[in-house]
Amino acid sequence: MTDTVITDVTGRDGFQMEKEWIGTEDKIKIINSIIDSGIPRIEATSFVSPKAVPQLKDAKEVISRINRRDVEIIALVPNVKGAERALEAEVDSINVVLSISETHNMKNINKTVDQSIQEITEISKFTESEKINISLGTTFGCPFEGLYDVQKVSEIVRRLSAIGLNRFTLADTTGMASPFQVTFFVKRLKSAYPDAEFGLHLHNTRGMGLANVYAGYQEGIRQFDAALGGIGGCPFAPGASGNVCLEDTVHMLHLMNILDGVDLQKLIEASRELERILGYQLPGQVMKAGLSTDTHIA
Amino acid sequence: MTDTVITDVTGRDGFQMEKEWIGTEDKIKIINSIIDSGIPRIEATSFVSPKAVPQLKDAKEVISRINRRDVEIIALVPNVKGAERALEAEVDSINVVLSISETHNMKNINKTVDQSIQEITEISKFTESEKINISLGTTFGCPFEGLYDVQKVSEIVRRLSAIGLNRFTLADTTGMASPFQVTFFVKRLKSAYPDAEFGLHLHNTRGMGLANVYAGYQEGIRQFDAALGGIGGCPFAPGASGNVCLEDTVHMLHLMNILDGVDLQKLIEASRELERILGYQLPGQVMKAGLSTDTHIA
Repeated sequence: MTDTVITDVTGRDGFQMEKEWIGTEDKIKIINSIIDSGIPRIEATSFVSPKAVPQLKDAKEVISRINRRDVEIIALVPNVKGAERALEAEVDSINVVLSISETHNMKNINKTVDQSIQEITEISKFTESEKINISLGTTFGCPFEGLYDVQKVSEIVRRLSAIGLNRFTLADTTGMASPFQVTFFVKRLKSAYPDAEFGLHLHNTRGMGLANVYAGYQEGIRQFDAALGGIGGCPFAPGASGNVCLEDTVHMLHLMNILDGVDLQKLIEASRELERILGYQLPGQVMKAGLSTDTHIA
Repeated sequence: MTDTVITDVTGRDGFQMEKEWIGTEDKIKIINSIIDSGIPRIEATSFVSPKAVPQLKDAKEVISRINRRDVEIIALVPNVKGAERALEAEVDSINVVLSISETHNMKNINKTVDQSIQEITEISKFTESEKINISLGTTFGCPFEGLYDVQKVSEIVRRLSAIGLNRFTLADTTGMASPFQVTFFVKRLKSAYPDAEFGLHLHNTRGMGLANVYAGYQEGIRQFDAALGGIGGCPFAPGASGNVCLEDTVHMLHLMNILDGVDLQKLIEASRELERILGYQLPGQVMKAGLSTDTHIA
């Protein structure tokens, strides 16, 4: 058994970017297909304000109706209220989002970083710490504030560690990181917080998604987020790729023999189904090119 | 000064895949823009049969009219006749192609591997060895024969070394390689042939292009091919990416401070111009997303 764990974020970071309403039945169908492929962790939705993100207003229904067998179901939450709703809906764990960048945190969840840390402190009072993951948005830079030093990230990890939290996702929210930066940040943070668990949430906005997965793997990261078909673009980059593509990530990890338990063909079929539902060409490559191990008749 | 060298292959591996005729003026304009950006090596065209690749029938005119200052102009050739025509056209060096896979070599240039090695031996009799680079097509696997052992590649390098050649490009012709495979192949070949120079020609067919650039860089490779906008797809993968994208590669290497002397903004402008000429959306990401260092007003 390999120790690499993929968390699918199609239902959250993928769907939330879609302007056209995706029917609840379609959401459930896609998420169930991903679960059926063997992906062990699913960030299925987000308990945010339905006014802010109307696309995810069916969060509770999605959680209640997806296939819950042998899989950890996660919901993203921005605050205490979201955490309460997610736990009521009986998710297995919550992913609380907080951006390293003040500007991004304010635009994303309308709070200062200090206010967000206060909310997280409140959440930690009524939720077991092993059920809480903290997603550190804009870890590798912010589209408003630019690139910054790892010390800025480290300081926030320090404050969250102090309240007993130790599961963090380093999120390259708008795909700014290079492999050297991932290497450097992961090395520094792992060394500063040896008891913490770090995962990576990467985007392929500038084509570096899988390069950064590889860089992170080399530094000992074993948890990676990805979204089916590579959906979930950024508002500043129309036409650019979104999250690292789930099936492309699985394909690469399979070629390197560092992932098992996932049926890649089922994911490719699910991605084609998602393409039909969304009605545009998805950025995923393996769904177009087939596997490296596929051969053709000469 | 960093020691990384990018060879642009837009005029050859990019244009050769385009079915619609690209006017000679447009070809020259694009290649001149790339030269103007500071890219030091340009594989501008291919001296192949005009019947086999009508798109490159203007090879001689392209070579004679592009800006030749401060740049090495290269042409790909498949055989003795192509080498003679390229040298007559006064290219600076030639890139002789030979596929590791028998099946691919036969389909690509209608010769067995043995026949190709005989042609290369003939070429080496009338061409200085420092003017000859050998492009080892399908190094990392063949779409007909599948993946194979590095020994198969090593044996062909051995035969070519024996006739005094020592510049090789390991070509992932249809984008099959993973970072571990690149690492392993490069390590083995560099160790077996310490006097040889190896470059990498990578495709992004399955999304692993920049991951493989990074893996190769880590193993000491300092020469990389790339094509503007990521053009140059594979006939088996309609809609999939082609060559690793020139401007995306430059962007990543810039972020890592391991490339200098290239004006990325000029490349992005050239890529947008190429998109207008070709009339479809190119796979390049940075041309859509902008640079990681670009910031937006909050």
